[in-house]
Amino acid sequence: MQPCFASDNYAGVHPRVMAALAAANDCPEHGGPDYGGITPAPAPAYGADQLTQAARARFKELLGDSAEAFFVFLGTAANVLALQAMTRPHHAVLCASSAHINVDECGAPEAHLGCKLMSVDTPDGKLTPELLLPFLHHLGNEHHNQPRVVSIAQATELGTLYSLDEIRNLARFAHEHGMWLHMDGARLGNAAVALGCELREMTADAGVDALSFGGTKNGLMFGEAVVFFRPEFVGDFPFIRKQGMQLCSKMRFIAAQFLELLRDDGQGGLWRENAARANAMARLLAERVAGIPGVAIIQGVETNAVFAQLSPAAIARLQARFAFYVWNHEANVVRWMTSFATTEAEVEQFAKAVREEAQAG
Amino acid sequence: MQPCFASDNYAGVHPRVMAALAAANDCPEHGGPDYGGITPAPAPAYGADQLTQAARARFKELLGDSAEAFFVFLGTAANVLALQAMTRPHHAVLCASSAHINVDECGAPEAHLGCKLMSVDTPDGKLTPELLLPFLHHLGNEHHNQPRVVSIAQATELGTLYSLDEIRNLARFAHEHGMWLHMDGARLGNAAVALGCELREMTADAGVDALSFGGTKNGLMFGEAVVFFRPEFVGDFPFIRKQGMQLCSKMRFIAAQFLELLRDDGQGGLWRENAARANAMARLLAERVAGIPGVAIIQGVETNAVFAQLSPAAIARLQARFAFYVWNHEANVVRWMTSFATTEAEVEQFAKAVREEAQAG
Amino acid sequence: MQPCFASDNYAGVHPRVMAALAAANDCPEHGGPDYGGITPAPAPAYGADQLTQAARARFKELLGDSAEAFFVFLGTAANVLALQAMTRPHHAVLCASSAHINVDECGAPEAHLGCKLMSVDTPDGKLTPELLLPFLHHLGNEHHNQPRVVSIAQATELGTLYSLDEIRNLARFAHEHGMWLHMDGARLGNAAVALGCELREMTADAGVDALSFGGTKNGLMFGEAVVFFRPEFVGDFPFIRKQGMQLCSKMRFIAAQFLELLRDDGQGGLWRENAARANAMARLLAERVAGIPGVAIIQGVETNAVFAQLSPAAIARLQARFAFYVWNHEANVVRWMTSFATTEAEVEQFAKAVREEAQAG
Amino acid sequence: MQPCFASDNYAGVHPRVMAALAAANDCPEHGGPDYGGITPAPAPAYGADQLTQAARARFKELLGDSAEAFFVFLGTAANVLALQAMTRPHHAVLCASSAHINVDECGAPEAHLGCKLMSVDTPDGKLTPELLLPFLHHLGNEHHNQPRVVSIAQATELGTLYSLDEIRNLARFAHEHGMWLHMDGARLGNAAVALGCELREMTADAGVDALSFGGTKNGLMFGEAVVFFRPEFVGDFPFIRKQGMQLCSKMRFIAAQFLELLRDDGQGGLWRENAARANAMARLLAERVAGIPGVAIIQGVETNAVFAQLSPAAIARLQARFAFYVWNHEANVVRWMTSFATTEAEVEQFAKAVREEAQAG
Repeated sequence: MQPCFASDNYAGVHPRVMAALAAANDCPEHGGPDYGGITPAPAPAYGADQLTQAARARFKELLGDSAEAFFVFLGTAANVLALQAMTRPHHAVLCASSAHINVDECGAPEAHLGCKLMSVDTPDGKLTPELLLPFLHHLGNEHHNQPRVVSIAQATELGTLYSLDEIRNLARFAHEHGMWLHMDGARLGNAAVALGCELREMTADAGVDALSFGGTKNGLMFGEAVVFFRPEFVGDFPFIRKQGMQLCSKMRFIAAQFLELLRDDGQGGLWRENAARANAMARLLAERVAGIPGVAIIQGVETNAVFAQLSPAAIARLQARFAFYVWNHEANVVRWMTSFATTEAEVEQFAKAVREEAQAG
Repeated sequence: MQPCFASDNYAGVHPRVMAALAAANDCPEHGGPDYGGITPAPAPAYGADQLTQAARARFKELLGDSAEAFFVFLGTAANVLALQAMTRPHHAVLCASSAHINVDECGAPEAHLGCKLMSVDTPDGKLTPELLLPFLHHLGNEHHNQPRVVSIAQATELGTLYSLDEIRNLARFAHEHGMWLHMDGARLGNAAVALGCELREMTADAGVDALSFGGTKNGLMFGEAVVFFRPEFVGDFPFIRKQGMQLCSKMRFIAAQFLELLRDDGQGGLWRENAARANAMARLLAERVAGIPGVAIIQGVETNAVFAQLSPAAIARLQARFAFYVWNHEANVVRWMTSFATTEAEVEQFAKAVREEAQAG
Repeated sequence: MQPCFASDNYAGVHPRVMAALAAANDCPEHGGPDYGGITPAPAPAYGADQLTQAARARFKELLGDSAEAFFVFLGTAANVLALQAMTRPHHAVLCASSAHINVDECGAPEAHLGCKLMSVDTPDGKLTPELLLPFLHHLGNEHHNQPRVVSIAQATELGTLYSLDEIRNLARFAHEHGMWLHMDGARLGNAAVALGCELREMTADAGVDALSFGGTKNGLMFGEAVVFFRPEFVGDFPFIRKQGMQLCSKMRFIAAQFLELLRDDGQGGLWRENAARANAMARLLAERVAGIPGVAIIQGVETNAVFAQLSPAAIARLQARFAFYVWNHEANVVRWMTSFATTEAEVEQFAKAVREEAQAG
Repeated sequence: MQPCFASDNYAGVHPRVMAALAAANDCPEHGGPDYGGITPAPAPAYGADQLTQAARARFKELLGDSAEAFFVFLGTAANVLALQAMTRPHHAVLCASSAHINVDECGAPEAHLGCKLMSVDTPDGKLTPELLLPFLHHLGNEHHNQPRVVSIAQATELGTLYSLDEIRNLARFAHEHGMWLHMDGARLGNAAVALGCELREMTADAGVDALSFGGTKNGLMFGEAVVFFRPEFVGDFPFIRKQGMQLCSKMRFIAAQFLELLRDDGQGGLWRENAARANAMARLLAERVAGIPGVAIIQGVETNAVFAQLSPAAIARLQARFAFYVWNHEANVVRWMTSFATTEAEVEQFAKAVREEAQAG
């Protein structure tokens, strides 16, 4: 396959994660059938095993004692089920028009929550209290969904970042108006690396109430976590997860991946290493295409995505050579995404192609 | 961990499956970073990769050309989404009271379909046309949910089996009354081995319209397939799956597992080998506990489960030593389940304990 | 139309109720267009008018200060929305198999609540704590819907009654196990008359948490009330009602009907007069058909329904002459229902026909 | 009550409609109890009565043979259930941001359909093919809800009108892209009068597939109709209506109102008379306030609403004297609405007050 800038979920599984999966399956002292030295070990299903308990404890170490983590299969589910715990169908979730929950989940939030998403256009994928104020006019009026959750993505779907202050302000605004703050952290690691902060500062300490903690886009095979920082959402969540078709029977294989991703390896952890490489590759790509005539970078390259504007013809030719998505058909904006597995050589190869195709008009 | 007869999903991952996962991640010719010889390869997300296409083709080989397979994460979702493709909320799904969809999915069918499940008590977990006839009185009457799907499990949740004739009769009955036949095949392999038939005879050839094809309980890490045998359910299903939060981004890792499970290895395939061992271990356990005073086996042991009646005191003592479930608290019935990883030594150890505790009164 | 024993909702509108509707529309001092002496008066929509406030206050007088009444259009909605206020989708509602919510609402409870109804067969349509105990085994287990509401009908769909003690016991049982007690009072007036008690004794004083208060079957044109006796259900209900498509814009026309139905007219109120007549006519019918060979009355005739067993041939001939429903096709059981508008002459005419057709074999 | 310009649903019931309700209840030949000359007559419930059949036939006369009308209680339900018949949860409904279904139904569409509403800002509440084109990029892509229905309001929520050509163009556009056209006709009569056309020209003949036909805002007590012009939506609709909690048991009382509203009275029908008066009063109001300094009329006054911009202080003082709604808090826009019962004197009184308060600054 050609170098690919379509999405960070085109990448495979980090070898350390793959090794952790194999180790979780192995059980030398188990007296079962021996398959060439590897023996699958039984363990209690549905998360009652030791690896799952250890992984949940690791989340508390990283995010604080209030953090209650629950594993699910994928990011859409992490978002939807986190929101479900915080809402009833007559509520509304406020989000950016560009939010993943608004445009990329085939309406799963509406279908599962029954709620309305109230979305607002933004220049950079980021909400502000000012943008949200008009939604509060109808609080208390039975004819209208009642805003209950403000949902932000960190990093945003446009690759931009909320500063710690911006998160705190949104949390305060939400809480002052009887709302909760949800963070879609599908690319939380990329954001933390970019801000140079710890995961906890950006979440629990900033007033986030519920978090979708991404794993798949940062090197896992599958698996995300819903993390609540408020005890009122915890009691019902096992039922919400099971009914939401996200209770993994062999849950230790999600837990084992997160344990490896979040383990203290003396070098900041695999999550940080992976995110840092993805971010660095996006920065490199941005540098290499900056100044090419006919190519305009239209969002700040703060994490692992580059949004650029090209001519339709150049886009078409480039797509014939490499996989990536057109983000906005009307405005001829494309998204180029890097991952933990992107190499410098791939970036150089791609940047060269961009230059060739942009110059061809 | 002690030998465990709680569920076949307590088992780990078959080593051949684990190896297939690792292989799916490896890509020698990929020029990416080398992590000790293993290099994660990118591939198109969401099932547009080659492994997924190959796995879907393999389903056609095994189940016939009409078989359209879609991968999902887990069995509850396979059932719910298959049913969703066949129903609207004013329909009803007819099932046995003991059906997994009726009792073990925390109401996911009702919550996601909006439909009513109409359940009927059975002696052995098996539906018959006679048991279903009373549900047809209200066909056409707007006050009542309209029966649209007959859902059976093969093998049943009680470890019993439908014969090929029984499946054909139910399919004919369903079709004659404007209904579809859905088969929950969480343990389809165990059933095929027990019946000594091919998977296709029990499904497509018998008139089944939609199938939940189990993987996790037969040695996979995660992953099930929804298989439709009718083209009318296929077109909408990608949307139903995505909205149903079951579209795996790195889908090749489900596909790779199924490819290994279903591969023609010259010995009937891993699915058959695994199921055969699980069934054999249940038969062995049934033989070993037969005749123990105070232990009554109350269902035919046709696949990989043994249902037995013991005194409450014996149950309590046995549960203190081994993991298994009480199936019916009122009737003191327990379920002992074997898996592909159960060994003869484990069965002997457990049977000895059953004898000890039953004799202790 | 022939005398009709199909349902109490085949009856028309009581003339006093019709007059109240006309009066609610009239406004002599209003300076609008004069249409032959009657002038439609504007009033605030959606229940902010004086009649609605007065009707809600009247409910408090009759049912106690805790009673918060909300008007809806029809009985199915009263049940569904009352239950929705008390549940989340992973909960379960426990009810009799014969409950209206279970069989006669086309699955509206499942579709709107997302919940599972867990139903139990009963000899007489009545739940008991003993019948409900088995449903409690799975409390706390994420694989199963969690019982949250016990829903009973008073009078039941079989025309039988709960005594005040039986209601109190069920309320105590429910509350001890973390559940609420809902009463479907589509025929609440008939029950109160039969028990010779006040409405409040049977509801608020007996521990009922939420009540569907029937109007249509007791002489109204349309309109039912949801009455909560617990403040925790009140705050969200206006939104649940609006989203549930039950917020009547010209709500004063429901309120006016209830005001007339519940008004202290010095003779116990119209609700009592209507219910008493319906009950009396059922008793008369039961007397007249008692002892007819081939006719067996199979439920106690406590309110306004007679359930009888006849030969299929007799049923068919009788249905050719009069409208009524077959209740149980397998058991040849029919339901004959009386209303406030049933006359003695109609009963005599019908009883004579029953005798003729039963004797014809 | 003061003259009221809050909404056309603040009005009462037209006396001819009230008389029709009384007549529907009366049955001289019925041998029931005589209540002072008026005798409530029984009739088959749930629409199997003669009045309902007659009213449905009348819709066919007015709207063409393809018109299949179903009665429901209220406008929100007419919209939601019509849309439900045309969609599955992974579809999307395209509408104007200002649409009633988008802002005034407390999320009932999302909650009941499971669908996403995709809304677009418009200057005048009207959709155009150009505005809708960007929503079609994702057709066939499983990550996004699939546009299936274009929903327009005629008259719009801003009191503006689609011309017959505009409706035809939208219908053609919808059909060309695999979508249906739904018309919210809560104020359909006002639109027909304003356009000077027959109801059929604006609906069936223009390519509308499903119609919400308003009654309550044009003089009824309660009751709306869902009208389908496509046979594929008809079969399931009785079940959708029942499950949607909109099956009126004494349906003849909705039918009787529509029969009177739509009856050929030799003068064009009551629906036309009522709508014409409401429109005329809005025009009069617009004339009277035109030119008042500080008052700007910001939408064309085509039907029975006037949208005006005033200073916040003037709005506040005026609201202290008369009931009406602020439409846009940010822009200081108010809505003044007239009804069939509005009188010229009321308009003059109100216009005088507007002048006073606007001049006061």
